[in-house]
Parts: sequence; C-alpha cells; structure tokens
Amino acid sequence: MSESMKAMVYYGENDLRFEERPIPKILAPTDAIVKLTKTTICGTDLGIMKGKNPEIEATAKERDGAFNGRILGHEGIGIIEEVGSAVKNFKKGDKVIISCVSRCGTCENCQKQLNAHCLNEGGWIMGYMIDGTQAEYVRTPFADTSLYHLPKELSEDVAVLLSDALPTSHEIGVQYGDVKPGDTVAIVGAGPIGMAALLTAQLYSPSKIIVADTDQNRLEMALEMGATDVVNSATEDPIEKILSLTDGRGVDCAIEAVGIPATWDVCQHVVKEGGNIANVGVHGQPVSFALEKLWIKNLKITTGLVNANTTDMLLKTCCSGKLPLEKMITHHFKFDDLEHAYKVFKNAADEKAMKVIIDYQ
Amino acid sequence: MSESMKAMVYYGENDLRFEERPIPKILAPTDAIVKLTKTTICGTDLGIMKGKNPEIEATAKERDGAFNGRILGHEGIGIIEEVGSAVKNFKKGDKVIISCVSRCGTCENCQKQLNAHCLNEGGWIMGYMIDGTQAEYVRTPFADTSLYHLPKELSEDVAVLLSDALPTSHEIGVQYGDVKPGDTVAIVGAGPIGMAALLTAQLYSPSKIIVADTDQNRLEMALEMGATDVVNSATEDPIEKILSLTDGRGVDCAIEAVGIPATWDVCQHVVKEGGNIANVGVHGQPVSFALEKLWIKNLKITTGLVNANTTDMLLKTCCSGKLPLEKMITHHFKFDDLEHAYKVFKNAADEKAMKVIIDYQ
Amino acid sequence: MSESMKAMVYYGENDLRFEERPIPKILAPTDAIVKLTKTTICGTDLGIMKGKNPEIEATAKERDGAFNGRILGHEGIGIIEEVGSAVKNFKKGDKVIISCVSRCGTCENCQKQLNAHCLNEGGWIMGYMIDGTQAEYVRTPFADTSLYHLPKELSEDVAVLLSDALPTSHEIGVQYGDVKPGDTVAIVGAGPIGMAALLTAQLYSPSKIIVADTDQNRLEMALEMGATDVVNSATEDPIEKILSLTDGRGVDCAIEAVGIPATWDVCQHVVKEGGNIANVGVHGQPVSFALEKLWIKNLKITTGLVNANTTDMLLKTCCSGKLPLEKMITHHFKFDDLEHAYKVFKNAADEKAMKVIIDYQ
Amino acid sequence: MSESMKAMVYYGENDLRFEERPIPKILAPTDAIVKLTKTTICGTDLGIMKGKNPEIEATAKERDGAFNGRILGHEGIGIIEEVGSAVKNFKKGDKVIISCVSRCGTCENCQKQLNAHCLNEGGWIMGYMIDGTQAEYVRTPFADTSLYHLPKELSEDVAVLLSDALPTSHEIGVQYGDVKPGDTVAIVGAGPIGMAALLTAQLYSPSKIIVADTDQNRLEMALEMGATDVVNSATEDPIEKILSLTDGRGVDCAIEAVGIPATWDVCQHVVKEGGNIANVGVHGQPVSFALEKLWIKNLKITTGLVNANTTDMLLKTCCSGKLPLEKMITHHFKFDDLEHAYKVFKNAADEKAMKVIIDYQ
Repeated sequence: MSESMKAMVYYGENDLRFEERPIPKILAPTDAIVKLTKTTICGTDLGIMKGKNPEIEATAKERDGAFNGRILGHEGIGIIEEVGSAVKNFKKGDKVIISCVSRCGTCENCQKQLNAHCLNEGGWIMGYMIDGTQAEYVRTPFADTSLYHLPKELSEDVAVLLSDALPTSHEIGVQYGDVKPGDTVAIVGAGPIGMAALLTAQLYSPSKIIVADTDQNRLEMALEMGATDVVNSATEDPIEKILSLTDGRGVDCAIEAVGIPATWDVCQHVVKEGGNIANVGVHGQPVSFALEKLWIKNLKITTGLVNANTTDMLLKTCCSGKLPLEKMITHHFKFDDLEHAYKVFKNAADEKAMKVIIDYQ
Repeated sequence: MSESMKAMVYYGENDLRFEERPIPKILAPTDAIVKLTKTTICGTDLGIMKGKNPEIEATAKERDGAFNGRILGHEGIGIIEEVGSAVKNFKKGDKVIISCVSRCGTCENCQKQLNAHCLNEGGWIMGYMIDGTQAEYVRTPFADTSLYHLPKELSEDVAVLLSDALPTSHEIGVQYGDVKPGDTVAIVGAGPIGMAALLTAQLYSPSKIIVADTDQNRLEMALEMGATDVVNSATEDPIEKILSLTDGRGVDCAIEAVGIPATWDVCQHVVKEGGNIANVGVHGQPVSFALEKLWIKNLKITTGLVNANTTDMLLKTCCSGKLPLEKMITHHFKFDDLEHAYKVFKNAADEKAMKVIIDYQ
Repeated sequence: MSESMKAMVYYGENDLRFEERPIPKILAPTDAIVKLTKTTICGTDLGIMKGKNPEIEATAKERDGAFNGRILGHEGIGIIEEVGSAVKNFKKGDKVIISCVSRCGTCENCQKQLNAHCLNEGGWIMGYMIDGTQAEYVRTPFADTSLYHLPKELSEDVAVLLSDALPTSHEIGVQYGDVKPGDTVAIVGAGPIGMAALLTAQLYSPSKIIVADTDQNRLEMALEMGATDVVNSATEDPIEKILSLTDGRGVDCAIEAVGIPATWDVCQHVVKEGGNIANVGVHGQPVSFALEKLWIKNLKITTGLVNANTTDMLLKTCCSGKLPLEKMITHHFKFDDLEHAYKVFKNAADEKAMKVIIDYQ
Repeated sequence: MSESMKAMVYYGENDLRFEERPIPKILAPTDAIVKLTKTTICGTDLGIMKGKNPEIEATAKERDGAFNGRILGHEGIGIIEEVGSAVKNFKKGDKVIISCVSRCGTCENCQKQLNAHCLNEGGWIMGYMIDGTQAEYVRTPFADTSLYHLPKELSEDVAVLLSDALPTSHEIGVQYGDVKPGDTVAIVGAGPIGMAALLTAQLYSPSKIIVADTDQNRLEMALEMGATDVVNSATEDPIEKILSLTDGRGVDCAIEAVGIPATWDVCQHVVKEGGNIANVGVHGQPVSFALEKLWIKNLKITTGLVNANTTDMLLKTCCSGKLPLEKMITHHFKFDDLEHAYKVFKNAADEKAMKVIIDYQ
C-alpha cells in the first residue's frame, strides 16, 4: 500500500483539484479504512463546489487551525482495508456499502434513530466536515453502525445508490410523507432524489404517482420507472394539472425534491385535506407558507436529513429485484476521469444524466 | 313550546343583533333539536363579528338565494327537545354536550376520522354555515355522531369546554404535536386555546411546559394551571428565553395558539431537531417559513381544524377530576345579558377573562 | 319485480335448502335492497352448514320467537334495487360491492374503526344473524357505510373478493401482522384466506413470503401468486423448514390462516424476537401458548374479525392491476347450480378449488 | 483501591454465599467499572437462587470451562471508578444509574431498539451471564449505552427503580399495552412490577386502574399509589369483579404481572373487544389460550423483556416529582446485611416488603 492516493479536493468556490493526497489512517478505535471500488457524484457536491457551504472552510479553521482542502464525496462501496480495535462487525477484505451518515449509536439522538443529528460528531460529515469518498481510500468513523455488508446477489452499481439516494428519498420523502397502499402521490422534481422517491414509493403500492419536472427526458424516464402520470411544468401549470389528475381533490402526499420556492409552492397547493408534504429539497431561502389557507386543512409538513435507519431494509428489498433500480444509472466513468464526470453531471439535463457511477477499475 | 326564541344573530361586519327568531325544526331524519342550558363565546365568534368571514353571507346567498342573518355559536350543552326518525342514540330529555363539529360518519373523510372535513355538509357548520348555539334552541345535524351524553358526575361548566376548546387544543395542539412523557413543550399564546392545550398536554406527562404570552395575568393563570415556566413576550425575547430554559436545545413540541406571523416565528425557532410544531392558531396571512435553516432539522409541522374524535375520551378524563379545568372559567352571565358578555369577552385581557359561561337559567 | 326469489337457506345441521323465499323489503331508513349479480361461498358457510353455529337458531328464536331458516352468504356484488329514506351515497341502479360487515358508523366501536364490533346490531350479521347474499336479492343494513361503488375498471369477479377475502386477510393478517418492506413472512395455510394474505402482503414489499400447507396443488398456486418459498407440511416439518429458510432466525411475521392447534403451534415457534403472530383462522378449541418460552421474546399476537375499514383502499389498489387477483378464482357456476357449487367447494382440495364465483346470469 | 470486595454469589440451587471476590477489571474498551452506592434485590434473583436458571451454570461451563459462581444483581446506582478507552459519555467520578440491560447499540436488534435481544452479547446479562451488582464494584459492558447520568434533583432511592422495575413495567406493561388517556386498565398482580406498572400507567392518564392481588396489604398500598379500584382475588372472583367494575364491558388493557396460568387466565377473560393483554410476568409453563372465544375479539397480546429504551424518558418524568415513587420502597438495609435483606425479601408478603434498598454506606 503506497502512501498517497488520488482524490477530488474542494479548496473554495469553483476550486476543485483532482490531486494526490495522503492515504487516511485509523484515528479512533471505531474507525475503518475502506478502499473504494465505486463512488458517485451527488447534487450536494455540486452545491459545495459552487460555494454554498462556506461552513466547510470556517469549521476546519476553527477546529484544525487551517483549511487544507476537503476531499468530497459521501457515497460509495469498497473493500475494508483496516479496522480499528473496537470494530466488531467488519474485518479486512469485507465488501461494504458506505452510508452517507455516520452515527455513534450511543447519543440521545442516535438512540431515537435520529442519526442525522448524532451528538458525537456524527451525522453527515464525510465529504463535508471530514474527508470523503471521492478518493481511493476513505476513513469511515463509527464503522459498525455506518457500513453495511454488500450482499453478493446485489448489483454493485445499485449498491452505490444505498449510500444516499435511496435512503434519503425513502425516509425523508416516502416515510415522512406516509405513503400508503392506494394513496395518490405527487413528486415535484425528477432529479436523482425525485426518481429515487418514485422507486421507493412503489414499495408501499400507491395507486397513483404523478411526477412533475421541466425536463421532458426525465419525465419519460419517470414513466419507465413507474410513474402513472407526468406533468411538464415548463408547458403546463403543475398545480392545475395535478388537481385535475385527482378529480380536483389533490394528492395524499406531495414530495418536494428540488428545494426552491416555486416547487414548495406547488406542493402546498396540491395536497388535499389530511395530506402530507414531505420536503426533501435543500433550500437556500425561506418560502412563503400559506397558513391563511392551510391552517384549516389538517396537513402534516415534514423536513429532514436522512437518518439511514432504513438502509438495511432497503438493501433487502433491492435484492428482491422488483424495482427497476438500474434505470437510475445513466453513465459510467473511470475514477481517473472523475473531472470529466463532474462536467457531465453539471450539465445533467443536456447530458440526460441521472446517477453517474465512478468505477475504480 | 312557543314559536320564537331569543338569539344572537350576525348580519354583517359589526352588526350583531340579539333578537327574536323562529325556533328551529327538524329538517333531516338525523337531526335533533336541543334546548340550550349553557353556551359560551369563542374567539372565532369575535372574528366573524369583525367581518373576517365574508363566506358566511356569500354561501347563504348562493345556497338560499338570500342572507337573512346567521345565529352565532358552536358550543354549548342542553336538553334534547326532539329527535329525527333516524336518531338512535338520543331521545327527548337527554342531557347532551354539543360538538362544534358535525359529521355524517359515512363519507370517506369521516371514515378516516377526518370529521372536520366531512364531505356530506358536516365539519364546522354550526354558527357558521347554519344557525348556531347562541340561542334558546339549536338544530344539530347528524345528532348520533355530533352529540355526547352529559354524565352526571361532570361539572356542567366544564362540559361546555368539551364542545370546542378542549378537543381543539388536544387534537390539533397536543396530539398533532405528539406530546409524550418527559417531553419539553412550548405553548405560544395563553388565550383559551393555549390554556386548554396546557391542560390537555398534562394528560401525557411532559416534563416541562413553557407558556409564552404578553399578558402577565394570563401567565400567572398558566402557572396555576400547570405551566412549569412562563415567558412574558412583552418584556423578554421569547426565542432566547425558551432556548435558555432548554439548555439551548429547544423544545420537543411548540404549539402555536395565536395565529399571527410573530408567534409562528417563535415556534419555528424554538423547536429542536426531530421536534414538532403544531399550529392551532387561525391565520389571516401567509407566514415566512425558514426552510433554508429548517430543511435539515427533521421537523414535523401540522395544521388543522378539530375532528372531535377525542371528545369522548376527554369526557372520561375530565370526569376523573385530575385537571384544574374550572380555572379556565372566569366569568358567568345570564343568557339575557349575552350582549354584555360579548363586550367583556372583546376586552378579555383588561377584563381578565378566559372562558365566559352563558347560563340560560 | 316478482314477490319471491330463489335462496340457499340453512335450517339446521346439514340441512340446506335451495328454495323460494319472499323478496326482502326495506325495514329501516338506512337499508338498501340489492339485486345480486355475483356471489360466492365462504369456508364460514360450510361451517354453518356443519352445525358449528347453533347461535343462529338460538338468537332467532329469542329475537323473533321462531327460527324459519336463514339465507346464507355475506359476499357479493349487485345492483341497487331500492334505498331507504336516509341513504345518501347510493341510488337505484348503482352497481355495488357488498361488505360482509355492516356498521352503524355512530357507536363507540365504529368511531374507533372497530366496525366488526358495532354496538348497534352491525358487525358480521348478513348470512348469520339476518338473511344473506346467496339469494336473488338481499337487504343490506347501514347501506351508506356497508356498500361500495363498483368502479368500471375493476373486474367483477375480483370485486367479489372485496366483500370478505381480501379485507379479512389484509386487515387481520397483513396489517395486524405489521408486514413491512424487507420483512420475512410465513403464511400457514393456503386456502382462500391464506392466498388472499399472500396477495395483500405484497402491497408492502416483504423480501420473503413462505407459504405452508399440506396440499401440493395449493403450494404451486402460491408460487404463481408471489410466494418466494413453499413448505409442504405433509412431508416436511414446517417449523424446521421455515427456520432453515430464515437462517435459523425465524420470520418477522407469521399469519395463521387455518384455525387449528397444529397451525397455531407452527406460528408460535417460527417467529423471531420482536416479531408478530397474526391469527386469522377461526378456532374451535383453545390452544397451548408457550409463554414459558415466549414471555421473553417481545412478541405481538393479534386476533380478530375484519372491520372492512380498508375495503376502500383495497378497491383502489385492485384497480391498479398489479396483483394477480384473478388467479384466486378457480371455478364459475350459475346461480341455479348453487347446490352443485357447494358440493365442489366442500371438496376444495380434490377439486382444486380456491374461490368459486356464482353468476346470476 | 484494594484487590477484593464483598459480593453475593450464586453457586447453585439454594447456595448463595456472601463472600470476598476479586474486584472486576475493564475487559473491553467499551466497559466501565462502577463502585456501587445502592442496589436492590429483584424477584428474578430469588428465582435464580431457587434453581430456576440452570443455564447460568451450563453457559459458564461451556464458555469458560468451569463455573466458579456468579455474582447476582442487575440493579443499582454508583460512581464511575474507571472507563475503557472507547467510552465517550462517562468519566471517573460520575454518578450513574446502571441499566439491567446492556446493549451494543450497533447490531440489527439494537438498531431497532430491541435492546433486550442485542446480538453482540448484550441484553440482560449482568447478574446472569456475567457478574452483577450485588457487590462493591461491577463491570458494566457497553457503558455508553447502558449507564445513565444520575441527576442531582432525583432521589437516589428512586433512581434504583430505574435500573429495572420502572422501565420493565412501563415498556412491557404500559407501552406494549398501549395505555391511553381515558382507558380502563386492569393490573393483575401487585408485586413490585405490578406496582411500578400502576405508577407508570398514570403517565398516560387512564380513567380507571383496577389492581388485583391476593394480599390485602398490597391492595391498600395500590390505592395509595393511584389505583381507582382493587380486587382481592383471594376472596372475590377477579374476572366477575373486573367485569362488573367496567359495566360488563371489560378493560381496554390487562397487564399480567405474576407469571402463572391463573393470572394469565384472568387477563384473557377481562379484556374487551379491541383491547390489549400485556404479559410482563415470567412464566414457567405454557398457558391455555382461549382462541376459540378470542379469535373474534380483535385483541393484541404482547410479551417481552425490557429494552430500557425509555429509561431516559422515565428519568425525566421521575424528576418532575408527580408520581409517589418513594412509596414503592418499604425497607432499607446496609450492604453488610445483604443476607438479612434476602430473608426479608423472600417473605415479602409477611414482611410487607415491596422494594428493599441496599445502602453501601
């Protein structure tokens, strides 16, 4: 094992460098070092690149005295290279899925399954507060609770979706939105998270799933992946159309999968009395909440970051092969071409890209 | 039984008339006519008087061709005078509590316990879409599902609170807010609904209940009724104070019991990760929802109108005598003095009024 | 409309007569008269025929002074012939599905969705305490809450399954058994109820469904209908086999769909810690409950009669066409051949019969 | 710190020895050593003494090659003497409550809050599979998840109840039994667990709590601790009496807190349709389960060992001081008199003993 590795490092707004970095080492007895075999790029990585997360630099300076760049990435699969002395469930050579959420398992929040808000320096930290997975090796804290054995019968490409896309959309979209058999569901936004919500919603057999987006190509993908109806918000009024598709009643559950005021607004106006709005989108500004109309409607609105407490369940259902998960994956790149992969993913609509898989071999 | 009766009738903005009206008659086989023995005034009645609900006149004109005034009131107890042919559970002479919500029991929403949104002309209609309880007699639709037998062991004054105040605060505040043993709760607003939330929250044994209001008299009442801490928002920053009372963590549940942007704003900033905001207040304008900060916090926000599906349970717990319910009642008036009662209730803060009881004898 | 009709009438143990009876009339304003177009035979009908329900005769004598036979049947679809004056949701000519459970919608139990235990002479009464559906016409009490509009897009044969088989297996088996995505499920008994549990369990995407029975033909049907594994209890030890199929761990949920001590015993020994046993079978004798081993296992055991509170949802999911519901139906008979249909259904195993449909035209 | 300590050691049936043993040492980085300040004796300890748990000796021989006695006790509070290198939440000198359940926090079951069935050698192990708390020092595995900081405002005697009695009765009795405001509850057995169920049930404001036992003294204690009614099963038929106290309807929830067929039988015959039986008692033989009557009643029956996942919540509610917890504690002994304490506790009824506290100073 050499001393250095290639990694995609964030140094500041629009300053990513694909460069040599030291291979990470075990720092705590609960850590593991994983040699990546596949990773991917998330919309969140693009957000960091665009400078939306100045806290990365600020926190590093406060904690470490300096900011020397942050390796991006919070998704991937790999092979255990080394485990700390307290790790019980994994050993060198095990094939694993890396969760985007690290959790101590012992704090008040982790004991409530609110792992996203782990009080012992867990939660979403990889590729954010500590170095991430867009590298040849990654250090994963709290390995016992933050890694999953990769079953042989599972496609390795699909396994990468279990790091973030599938659990995020399932927990924060489908579960918080309380999707039940027979329900009508609207998913506003057909990017990777909206598409993963479309897939995982089907685990609960809703009778109607309407997907809205402005990109016709993505809407066609949605139909192939199980949408019963689609709405092109570029050419139709999505509120009117969703209401007309539900006999004017509105949907039982609206899933916000974009993170801008316009899509929030669609959601709050298409949910029927007693329904749910599950916000999954990452927002950059406040939204107007029409409480003067909605105070009376017995709605439930939810927000959140993934807890990854359904990853294990999703892993089992993915293995059963009933969902067309592979359709999520539109592009493959070699790890050496990671910069090119970023370019393609930045122009996802033009490139007809959904999830891009980065292969290390 | 004479042909006419006294009633408080709304004719338009600031036009209430305490006048003679015909005694109501059974219109449907599921109706009952109740002779009132006690009623009360709700903040909603004041809202109607102030002209906040122009739909009252509009709907009447559309439905009946003309608007001839609306008898106000959706709360009260009384004695059954007559029942329709399909009423099974009540007979002439029964003492009953009248629910503010009428429900057919058969529509899709009633079968989901979403009675507030009954699709067969139920929901909140009395004193709103049809004549109400501030009269000597009232016609109650769907009597079997909308009336409750008044148990002998229950105080008749307290029974009046079961029409609206207790179920509304319990269902839309405490239950939607998921108050559990050991929780910390903030109630923003110490009017009748906030106070009733303070009482019914105690059914679930939270460890801390913080009540915020601008009226010191009401805060002192709150302490007598079970608040562990109070915050005078006129003299202290309620957000800072509530955070400091919870070691900077915030509360598990914030109950909005006013209905203005400022109180909503307090709620959204004092709830900790994984917590709940239960909006009970009736809002007149949109609010700003800080999704740019809250998308990540795994919050649940709820809204709603009472379903009265816990009235029966509350009736049982009220009989057990553990809650200081009588403290809610600050004033008594004779029915003939109803106009005076309105004056007092309009100046509730100055008059140190919480709930006022109107006695017919 | 003539005065009399053909009907299958129970007079006592092994005394069924297919004879002329008067056409039923509206007795209460909430009744409807339905002209049947399809019905079926339930295992419960065979039980009555065999004399297992002496309460039928006893109750009739106590209530009516005499027992003049009881028309069997609690399942079917038809066309509304007449409605009582209080019926709101249906009118003459509507095509309807008849629920096996009648519910007043107003009693304490109906308001808790415990319709099976309606306190106003509802619950399971048709073909039991009052005349049933194995006739040309039937009187259905509480029509508004006990009938469902038959959607055009739904197969009429499948619609018959919505009277009893699908809601019973879904509510008492799958819902009480808390089947979730990724779960392992064992269904003990592959008769109509076990098969309907197999179908409705799939609405929740369990990863493994093991079906056990002694009839190889039924096990083969189970594999076609979605079972992942089957166990022939005639030739293999079902406890050992189910444990070995689950790596020795046991299943998350065992559904008892027979009603004898031996099948109960299989269930109690194949559930893992934290799991559920959902008893759907109708038992004739007590069972031995191994509390000396199971007190420590954090199990949930449930029992029950269908509430039909998910019929509406099932109707929507059946319309979506994802489940192979038609496979449940193995035989068709004309109503005039109802006696022959009984003979075939009595020998269900030999005749390879699952559900038999009786067509009136 | 000396090398040895006093401890109560089980060597076999009726062979307890209060003798010198080596002070325990840290074995794993997640361990802590606690110096006890208070402990108590549980009914389970008496069961071990009587030879009911031969698995103690068998497991020790299989695992360690020999059985050299087991220090009893799984309850107590103390001061941290030493922590392993991976312990984050505790340090030397901290006052702590010791949970009877150890949990790794990382296995499949711990991640489902099914800590009682921890798959990494946790669950109930102290004073059973490893040495326990009836000693001057104890080694507690998985310290971060199995210890609780003892708040200053909490009575230290009451704190001892948080090791086992309160969480067991709350989780397996009250929570599994789904006790809600307004419910009627029957608690069958008024020993320490029944009494703790009586206390913790009151966190949810049931309207009626009936306690049945054969010991009049315990029934009088129950009335002081919040029972609304009591039944002396030695002189009255408990089934008849409980039914008559509930207008013949039966209770919403029956809690079995003894563990013999007779008390199970009372429970299964006093629960109304839709109700719950929560078995907390440790049974030594199977019971007869009247499925021939109960299959139709929509019951939920639960079993289980405590997960201690509500200990933290109970700690907060205990601090609020609303429950008369001190009444549970009838006797105090010095640690040097532990043998005498055992004698008194063995004759609990005659000695009018409920919980006995063992003080180390």
